[in-house]
Amino acid sequence: MIFDRWNALLKNADSIFDTVSDEQLQQELRPGKNRGIYLLGHLIAVHDDMLSILDLGAKEYPDLYTLFVSSPDNASSEMPSVGELRALWKKQLVTLTAKAEDFAKEPHRNKLNIILTRTTHLSYHVGQLTLLKQQ
Amino acid sequence: MIFDRWNALLKNADSIFDTVSDEQLQQELRPGKNRGIYLLGHLIAVHDDMLSILDLGAKEYPDLYTLFVSSPDNASSEMPSVGELRALWKKQLVTLTAKAEDFAKEPHRNKLNIILTRTTHLSYHVGQLTLLKQQ
Repeated sequence: MIFDRWNALLKNADSIFDTVSDEQLQQELRPGKNRGIYLLGHLIAVHDDMLSILDLGAKEYPDLYTLFVSSPDNASSEMPSVGELRALWKKQLVTLTAKAEDFAKEPHRNKLNIILTRTTHLSYHVGQLTLLKQQ
Repeated sequence: MIFDRWNALLKNADSIFDTVSDEQLQQELRPGKNRGIYLLGHLIAVHDDMLSILDLGAKEYPDLYTLFVSSPDNASSEMPSVGELRALWKKQLVTLTAKAEDFAKEPHRNKLNIILTRTTHLSYHVGQLTLLKQQ
């Protein structure tokens, strides 16, 4: 049940990223708030961290964690390009989907709770990303 | 586990509503998008509907469902005032918290799934409402 929501939200986020342009991702959600590119990097970094917490592999992108989780959005910080982040997102999506399937076979309560909190976290930001789409 | 997330998100939404002013609730999340007042009414209407789906009581606010779920936001439609909606939210919060406690004792899979989807729905809009808060 939780995995169904997780997968649906991942698909949802993926289709938003496919829909919004690079220019839209450079926009702030509201003046002075995070940009779309920051949320893209933030989700990749949080999900990378999640995989390591679940013992599903070592963190692949510790630099992204520093940039997109430990630090707030800052237009002057050196970030990967939107194109690079889009590619990492697509690559990670394959991993997340495959690992989640394995994991769903033998969920442990504490670890399932990690999936649940990441599911609501994803939903939180999907709600925000939706605002970047044009009417 | 799911009820913990649900309760935490309700609390989270409640504290955002306490923080933002009536004027902020009249703002659009982005130009042309929903206003805060619409999301406040929308959450009350969806949660009212949820209680009836869970057989925890009849729908108390069918008019709000028509206004805030069946219809998109529209500045010219006749809505209850922010003050009235704030009062309904606070009243409903007591009901939701009490009913959820009862319900958590005997969750059924299908109904638990309703709570889960409403939890991610709530998270989605909490992410958006956060944007109304001042820096």
